[in-house]
Amino acid sequence: MRGQGVSHLSRLELQILGDNTKMGWGLLAPIRSQTVSRSLLYNRRLPHSSFTPYFFQHFQPPSGLTLPSETMAKDMTLLWGSGSPPCWRVMIALEEKNLKGYNHKLLSFDKKEHKSEEVMKMNPRGQLPAFKHGDKVLNESYAACLYLENQFKSQGNKLIPDCPAELALMYQRMLEGLTLHQKMIDDITYNWKVPEGEKHDSAVKRIRESLTAEIKLWEGYLQKTSGGFLAGKTFSLADVCVYPTIFTIFRFGLCEERYPKLAAYYNRLKDRPSIKASWPPTWLENPRGEDIMKDI
Amino acid sequence: MRGQGVSHLSRLELQILGDNTKMGWGLLAPIRSQTVSRSLLYNRRLPHSSFTPYFFQHFQPPSGLTLPSETMAKDMTLLWGSGSPPCWRVMIALEEKNLKGYNHKLLSFDKKEHKSEEVMKMNPRGQLPAFKHGDKVLNESYAACLYLENQFKSQGNKLIPDCPAELALMYQRMLEGLTLHQKMIDDITYNWKVPEGEKHDSAVKRIRESLTAEIKLWEGYLQKTSGGFLAGKTFSLADVCVYPTIFTIFRFGLCEERYPKLAAYYNRLKDRPSIKASWPPTWLENPRGEDIMKDI
Repeated sequence: MRGQGVSHLSRLELQILGDNTKMGWGLLAPIRSQTVSRSLLYNRRLPHSSFTPYFFQHFQPPSGLTLPSETMAKDMTLLWGSGSPPCWRVMIALEEKNLKGYNHKLLSFDKKEHKSEEVMKMNPRGQLPAFKHGDKVLNESYAACLYLENQFKSQGNKLIPDCPAELALMYQRMLEGLTLHQKMIDDITYNWKVPEGEKHDSAVKRIRESLTAEIKLWEGYLQKTSGGFLAGKTFSLADVCVYPTIFTIFRFGLCEERYPKLAAYYNRLKDRPSIKASWPPTWLENPRGEDIMKDI
Repeated sequence: MRGQGVSHLSRLELQILGDNTKMGWGLLAPIRSQTVSRSLLYNRRLPHSSFTPYFFQHFQPPSGLTLPSETMAKDMTLLWGSGSPPCWRVMIALEEKNLKGYNHKLLSFDKKEHKSEEVMKMNPRGQLPAFKHGDKVLNESYAACLYLENQFKSQGNKLIPDCPAELALMYQRMLEGLTLHQKMIDDITYNWKVPEGEKHDSAVKRIRESLTAEIKLWEGYLQKTSGGFLAGKTFSLADVCVYPTIFTIFRFGLCEERYPKLAAYYNRLKDRPSIKASWPPTWLENPRGEDIMKDI
């Protein structure tokens, strides 16, 4: 099996990581580094995006006046890479909490900008996202999501449910999401992550079997959980954190017919405003990924 | 380097995992499965343990009466393995929240009891801990800790700080702890985790270098953070989650002189009641681990 699948990936396809990984990024695709307003970036690219209205782009509330529905988060900075699920998590959380107008900079993994001094100052592991609110640094995407919900409880959508049963399921699925993510990464990156002399077909097979078992578990979860979201009836931090991973697996060719519940979830959430507004720009340019997971 | 270090581990030393892992446990040491009250178990073993007083072992509060300082958590069940940091996290959190008298069962990794029907019903990955509160299942140790703090906010010690700066640091260190844990596990388990034909000295070296860089990062964190805990002046969920990993690294021989801040933290928290009361019983029997990390 060695050499199959992953070696055929376009380099654009490999921008799927961020934090939680130990890799260099020499193989990744060129993305021009750009510091632009989020609204400009997405308005230009997304055909049906939820645009930031002109009013909110230019309106500065007088001191003392807070808008009930959204905050101009000018004291937040996000350094991010396109197509990285950890970066996407944080961007979805910011949208859900109606935190608009934050400073952000799209960096190129290909140019190793994630190892630049600018990133290393905020994130000494040299990974993206690198995020801060004022002088509070939150580079771990799960940490940033938990913090944003805690600090902006009454703003935007509530992401931690009150009902103890939904709460328990939410934390459980959210944290299990890290296992799904890691198994996906192990499968996708084997060929370029493992040095040539250390590659073994048996390892490729074992990693694929482990990912397959994991995906079946999630299909089962969605069969048992009614309500349409990972923790029941409410969109929650579990969805914020795990959706980018599930999306990536389908982008890499997972068969929708074989995993109907996961596919329904994947397709339904595509249209959620927070997800649409933060869609990875390189994936707009290349809507289809390689089909390396089609046989799972 | 192949064959060094890990192959000399006593089998008892290998009981350091739980959730967040993908391994079978055929090599692990025999521990007799036992269902006993926690207080009996620890009272017998720990010389200075914080015993559960007789009153609380036998007192049943009348319906409607809650005790301000501790709760008889008879609707909680924990299946656990000795020496597993993920299991230890949950036990420390239960102690911190003064949740006493929960049902628990010590299982043997060596006998593959973590793959038993009893565990699989609660945790389909066949890992420990397997934890539930009523019918709410929380097998991911981080999920269980977050849930317990959320549901028992006003009981025992507060584990999520109010101060935004401490809160941000708490979430960041807590989630970074998973990276430290994974790098430790990769190092310790390489020789028995990787099949014989797939072992490479170059991989052992790379894993060791990655762990070394990670440990240096944490030594630096503790140099910069005043207050004695991972997120400052207050013992928090970051300590609950990361201390068992740091303890395990020292148990495997990390040089205290070379990492003085980490060593001071490791030694100071040994005496914390929640940690003392939940000390892994197999580590009481074998207080010293193998010195496989002495050269880091």
